[in-house]
Amino acid sequence: MDQSAAEIAGRLGAGRVAEPPGALPQPAQRLDNAGPVRDYEVEVAVERLCLDSTSHRNLRERANGEPDGIGELIAEIVSSRGKMHNPETDSGGILLGTVAATGAAVADAPQIGTRVASLASLTLIPLRLESVDHVDPDSPQVDVTATAYLFDATGWASMPEDLPENKALELFDVCAAASQVRALSAGAETVCVLGAGHAGKLSLPAARDSAPDATLVCADVDRGALDAVAELGLCDIAVATDLRDPLGALAAVRDAGAEPADLTIVVVNAPNCEAAAALLTADGGTVLFFSMATRFSAAALAADGIGAELRMIVGSGYAPDQGDYALELVRGSEPLRRALGIELVAA
Amino acid sequence: MDQSAAEIAGRLGAGRVAEPPGALPQPAQRLDNAGPVRDYEVEVAVERLCLDSTSHRNLRERANGEPDGIGELIAEIVSSRGKMHNPETDSGGILLGTVAATGAAVADAPQIGTRVASLASLTLIPLRLESVDHVDPDSPQVDVTATAYLFDATGWASMPEDLPENKALELFDVCAAASQVRALSAGAETVCVLGAGHAGKLSLPAARDSAPDATLVCADVDRGALDAVAELGLCDIAVATDLRDPLGALAAVRDAGAEPADLTIVVVNAPNCEAAAALLTADGGTVLFFSMATRFSAAALAADGIGAELRMIVGSGYAPDQGDYALELVRGSEPLRRALGIELVAA
Repeated sequence: MDQSAAEIAGRLGAGRVAEPPGALPQPAQRLDNAGPVRDYEVEVAVERLCLDSTSHRNLRERANGEPDGIGELIAEIVSSRGKMHNPETDSGGILLGTVAATGAAVADAPQIGTRVASLASLTLIPLRLESVDHVDPDSPQVDVTATAYLFDATGWASMPEDLPENKALELFDVCAAASQVRALSAGAETVCVLGAGHAGKLSLPAARDSAPDATLVCADVDRGALDAVAELGLCDIAVATDLRDPLGALAAVRDAGAEPADLTIVVVNAPNCEAAAALLTADGGTVLFFSMATRFSAAALAADGIGAELRMIVGSGYAPDQGDYALELVRGSEPLRRALGIELVAA
Repeated sequence: MDQSAAEIAGRLGAGRVAEPPGALPQPAQRLDNAGPVRDYEVEVAVERLCLDSTSHRNLRERANGEPDGIGELIAEIVSSRGKMHNPETDSGGILLGTVAATGAAVADAPQIGTRVASLASLTLIPLRLESVDHVDPDSPQVDVTATAYLFDATGWASMPEDLPENKALELFDVCAAASQVRALSAGAETVCVLGAGHAGKLSLPAARDSAPDATLVCADVDRGALDAVAELGLCDIAVATDLRDPLGALAAVRDAGAEPADLTIVVVNAPNCEAAAALLTADGGTVLFFSMATRFSAAALAADGIGAELRMIVGSGYAPDQGDYALELVRGSEPLRRALGIELVAA
């Protein structure tokens, strides 16, 4: 392997893969989570995991909502895989901690002691868990004592000083949605957001920013979450409907006065919403699948099943702006802050 | 339900769903495959199924390559689901047959006796199987005696008169790739096609058509398939490499002189090639996942894992041109016909 190949392998963390040989860290079955920090890594003393919404829902259901059970499932997964990569949902989340050491070859190495959030998925980050310290079943955020190694290639963000850390972490977990929605919304007349959780709340102002005259529709089965979004003016039309029933959802959304969407954004954490997404979208329109509960084949065949030409996009967790745009939206929108329960603090 | 909702439901075949209630036919667990033909349907006397590549590979492996075993698996699947929807790959294929009856409400109903291929996936077509008549384990085409009901919304194509039927069927199974590759290739300097099967062979001339000056790269683990593609001039650079080993594949493709791709097209029928696809693509480039072996989470997290901004697209089986562009490519390119083993016949 020549120098450049070795460098690429190092920056991607290939040397951390324990099984199977040749894999990259994300799809790998198991990572080597042992210290010390390597050349292209940043070592973080981890205080908190922020599970992605689909994984959190899965763990809560499997543990019947019991905090101890959720903690045990987390410990089992990290113990067997060397990373918090939920095998049932194939998804992770992000983490919060303090930089403890940096490898010799890291570009733009952060200062020791800097508080950082990982922006790359937990599914690719070597993690050594000492203890699960606190679990609230209703929150995806779990307090832990652990050590993680962030790869040079996959990025992190310094924690902002004007947001409470738990709120900043929630935001970083879904921040990539904001930039992607902004890019895809340009010129849209109707944008439909499926899911009124954090990613949905953030997607709506991003669409408004990019397409100020568009009608924004938000649909979710949870009427409470939906009412909050509607009352704050984040959307123009709110529809309480079960998206797993595509014809029912179509009827409900049309009855509420919404036209076929130029852009539909899927940010629900429940499976089997692909058909509804396709059905709610105009022929020639775009569907952004951001939810980790999406099944590829169901998405690929959804357009087939309704005989429509759709551009279907796999949402990426990668945020080249390191969350800056999401922070900008939050700082600039009082309704969004209220929807997310964020109060800015003096820096 | 008002008239228009009933009409939508009818055209999508919602009344054919036996389980679960409220689903559309594609994601449904089981369809009602009983006659007679309904208002928005075309009844077809089916002679042949053309399994999609991923399902064919799966069935062949499960039956250890035995024709009878493959036939039994097909019979079991259709018996339990009312459709040829492989539950392990979540994929189907297409069918060939003769129009036997048409429902009263079908728009542009084909003549009785017309030979047609379904363009929509077998995963959504009610199918009643009488017998599996011939299986060649090396071919995805299986002779059967069966009855199918095609929905008005999801389309079919008349069989062309200048191609042998088995070759036309192979082509229709992957024809949607051609139009999508054409649209996405415009302006590309390097296009990388992962997989040298039918979809790969068809994608290369589509890219050449749209981006005549682009360097076309084809990578596959099967050196024989690759050599054929290279010798016929369908690609400029051919690389024999195992795409499940992303760093090995990256080294092999770069050693062969290929630059990072503006567009990478994934048409392999093996799983775990998502990371290689992401790694071979330039920052800011596009990945088209056309393979039904793609996992959504692996694709979504692939960009994350390498820290690159990629536009990742879910390939759709829907072909609004009903295969016309793929036929045009075949008729216009002698090398493509040789690659696909097609000899045009007098109409």
